[in-house]
Amino acid sequence: MSYSHLTLHTDKYQINMMYAHWVQGSLNKKAVFEAYFRKLPFGNGYAVFAGLERIVDYIRQLTFSDEDIHYLRQQEERYKEGFLDELKNFRFTGNIHAVPEGTLVFPNEPLIRVEARIFEAQLIETALLNFMNYQTLIATKASRIKQVAANETLLEFGTRRAQEADAAVWGARAAYIAGFDATSNLRAGMLFGIPTKGTHAHAWIQDHDTEEEAFQKFAEALPDQVSLLVDTYDSVKSGIPNAIKTAKLLEQQGKRMNSIRIDSGDLAYISKQAREMLDRAGLPYVKIIASNDIDENIIINLKAQQAKIDVWGVGTQLITAADQPSLGGVYKLVAREKKGAYEPVIKISGNPEKVSNPGIKEIYRIINKETGKAEADYIAQSDETDVRRGKPLKLFDPLQPYKNKIITNYEGVPLLKPIYIDGELVYSLPKLEDIRRFHQEQLQLFWPEYLRILNPELYRVNLSPASWALKMKLIQKYNG
Amino acid sequence: MSYSHLTLHTDKYQINMMYAHWVQGSLNKKAVFEAYFRKLPFGNGYAVFAGLERIVDYIRQLTFSDEDIHYLRQQEERYKEGFLDELKNFRFTGNIHAVPEGTLVFPNEPLIRVEARIFEAQLIETALLNFMNYQTLIATKASRIKQVAANETLLEFGTRRAQEADAAVWGARAAYIAGFDATSNLRAGMLFGIPTKGTHAHAWIQDHDTEEEAFQKFAEALPDQVSLLVDTYDSVKSGIPNAIKTAKLLEQQGKRMNSIRIDSGDLAYISKQAREMLDRAGLPYVKIIASNDIDENIIINLKAQQAKIDVWGVGTQLITAADQPSLGGVYKLVAREKKGAYEPVIKISGNPEKVSNPGIKEIYRIINKETGKAEADYIAQSDETDVRRGKPLKLFDPLQPYKNKIITNYEGVPLLKPIYIDGELVYSLPKLEDIRRFHQEQLQLFWPEYLRILNPELYRVNLSPASWALKMKLIQKYNG
Repeated sequence: MSYSHLTLHTDKYQINMMYAHWVQGSLNKKAVFEAYFRKLPFGNGYAVFAGLERIVDYIRQLTFSDEDIHYLRQQEERYKEGFLDELKNFRFTGNIHAVPEGTLVFPNEPLIRVEARIFEAQLIETALLNFMNYQTLIATKASRIKQVAANETLLEFGTRRAQEADAAVWGARAAYIAGFDATSNLRAGMLFGIPTKGTHAHAWIQDHDTEEEAFQKFAEALPDQVSLLVDTYDSVKSGIPNAIKTAKLLEQQGKRMNSIRIDSGDLAYISKQAREMLDRAGLPYVKIIASNDIDENIIINLKAQQAKIDVWGVGTQLITAADQPSLGGVYKLVAREKKGAYEPVIKISGNPEKVSNPGIKEIYRIINKETGKAEADYIAQSDETDVRRGKPLKLFDPLQPYKNKIITNYEGVPLLKPIYIDGELVYSLPKLEDIRRFHQEQLQLFWPEYLRILNPELYRVNLSPASWALKMKLIQKYNG
Repeated sequence: MSYSHLTLHTDKYQINMMYAHWVQGSLNKKAVFEAYFRKLPFGNGYAVFAGLERIVDYIRQLTFSDEDIHYLRQQEERYKEGFLDELKNFRFTGNIHAVPEGTLVFPNEPLIRVEARIFEAQLIETALLNFMNYQTLIATKASRIKQVAANETLLEFGTRRAQEADAAVWGARAAYIAGFDATSNLRAGMLFGIPTKGTHAHAWIQDHDTEEEAFQKFAEALPDQVSLLVDTYDSVKSGIPNAIKTAKLLEQQGKRMNSIRIDSGDLAYISKQAREMLDRAGLPYVKIIASNDIDENIIINLKAQQAKIDVWGVGTQLITAADQPSLGGVYKLVAREKKGAYEPVIKISGNPEKVSNPGIKEIYRIINKETGKAEADYIAQSDETDVRRGKPLKLFDPLQPYKNKIITNYEGVPLLKPIYIDGELVYSLPKLEDIRRFHQEQLQLFWPEYLRILNPELYRVNLSPASWALKMKLIQKYNG
């Protein structure tokens, strides 16, 4: 089978529900699902949406191959042949709206909205969540790292510790969107056009009789890209002095050594020593790369110690989002077709924050026209027109009534864009560089208090009064 | 480009080192690398090796496509055309030894040994570590869960929270090796022959006017595979009573309902209520599935509360190895060709546990012939013959001299098997069912004290006296 064929990259229960709808004749009924997460990861003040390009590609290729059908025919469920025939003709014919990649997003906002036959909307849930959850998680982690390293170069170095191959490349892409400058993974570079960077490993040194010889041979081979790993034996006593010798030899050829890399030991102490030794040798242009279990907290701490690091190589902590390795994005039914119209649907839970927001919704980013800054996000039913007409908005939080507020001089920017309409791709996928730039522009819309990595201000995300009233009505209905 | 083509799934520094070897004419020199991890994950007493099938497949397909070459030609390194020509003819011609999947393994043991031209051995490091690290991590996590749920059924439900698509399927496979019974991911089922299971989602209920109607319609569609999710509104007041009604209707058709599933709320309380209600209704055969952020600690705690759960659906915590989402496996040069012979190589570090074990090594599992149980693992130089000849072994730990021990009546089972010899695959990949069975047999070799999930006894892994002496000699050499 083709390993890259993803139609069965879904949970069996989706197929079982599709089958039950087929048996019951309800397969063509329309349904609207929204994908969102309930809680920001890492204690961050925002998340960075990613995964859309992968989703577009997945939808585009979504057909059942003969092999898929053959496999399903063998299942213990013994699906009827009529159902398998229906699958043979399957294609996605619905609508998908989503926020563009690189957008700053917040809890409980619909990030992807799928309106389709229940038969189709159910199939795609698993893959959509898988892609959105991971890529958004890594883009968010990368954005945190970028917040504390705005003036340095950031390299993604995580492949060997990534959770398998897809995570390595899509994680590298997510990191690039959020401001990383390059990746070490060449496949990610080739697939997505991300710049790639690489130095050498300890093995290069160990494979020579002396460190000095190893450095010089490497510099001979790649005289314009010399970056030397100095910690194989002892950075301060051996690695840095040998790197300096190599840099001086390069200068004799009119070349400049690019950098040294420190991959172990006390990065604060060694980097300061290295800077001093390099400067004293007249090599202020040689940069210092640090790469050993780096994350945003290590960076902040090293900076507090005046470490002299120009480039951060970030691996495990980023690519696995080690401090919280999953984003709990969910995909919930918000409306179902009944007698030719949509009826809003709620999911009740004993856990208040797990009660879903019913109805088909839009998100608007409310930009204050005086400051140019984002004031709040506003979740309204899709048939509400107040925001589009610029009418005064009541921003209210039912749990914090003292925070109510009327806002008048604003622009309400709708965040959800049409991606697929009637099964046709209507969205022109932006270039990766444009997504990366868009993310930087997005950040400019927010006051820095929302962006800091520790105890950020909570950005407002409010339901419209109509959305709130609908929610209350449906809760009443199920409780009474 | 073909998304499944993995040759450039490597770090750029590998290509840069290959290039430097090509420039320096050292590309054909032989080198030996060993892959191992230094620390067991999750505080477990052992790890479960996995990833070999993926590695075999990767090596088999390892050629540079025209597109790869084109991409490399564009890099800022400006590799010479002669190098790119060399890559066009690249294929793996070396030897790979590895432990079989499902083997219990321990820190500092060579799990994969690569003997090849440095040009080849360097290229494959990144992908080998990526596959071994993730799959071994998940197999180990799954094995821990199996330890505390030996008598229940274990289902892998993690796809939507997995770190992208590869993690979902290879993680499902790793879990199956370690004793899980099925996965929800159909693609994993199709790729690897893992049994698949699925129930239905909350959306199925929400898409009907009442829960009762939803249950009955689902049961009509799949009367032989009825598993009902009971927590959409209120498990005890609504879901379980409605499921019982459905079960009774099924009985009238001579069918037996399979199970109910509880996905939220107090799993201890609700499962006990459910068991009582089902039993009272004459439905002792209906099983109870629990599935909400389950891991080995939740299972132990629920069991301590006498929860009545027959089937565990395990998602996020397993598929991301949430409590430790990476295994720090490394790939270190242990010997290099010099004047036609191998010279052992060490990697020094200020951190004692990071100092590598030099020389080409074998691992032997020392089985006590009286008890049939594993006594220790013994790491010897590959040219040592004591173990193979059954000679008395001195097991010693230089840090714990009071633990020295002579062992005589033993069988020494070599763990590393030839996989590739001179570039030819000589290993017949076992069937997945056989790997799973082999893993169970492996567990039988160990006393239970090594297998428990909390504070396990530390299993002995000792260097042979010759290996220890070699290490000391090389440390002396670099320090003096």
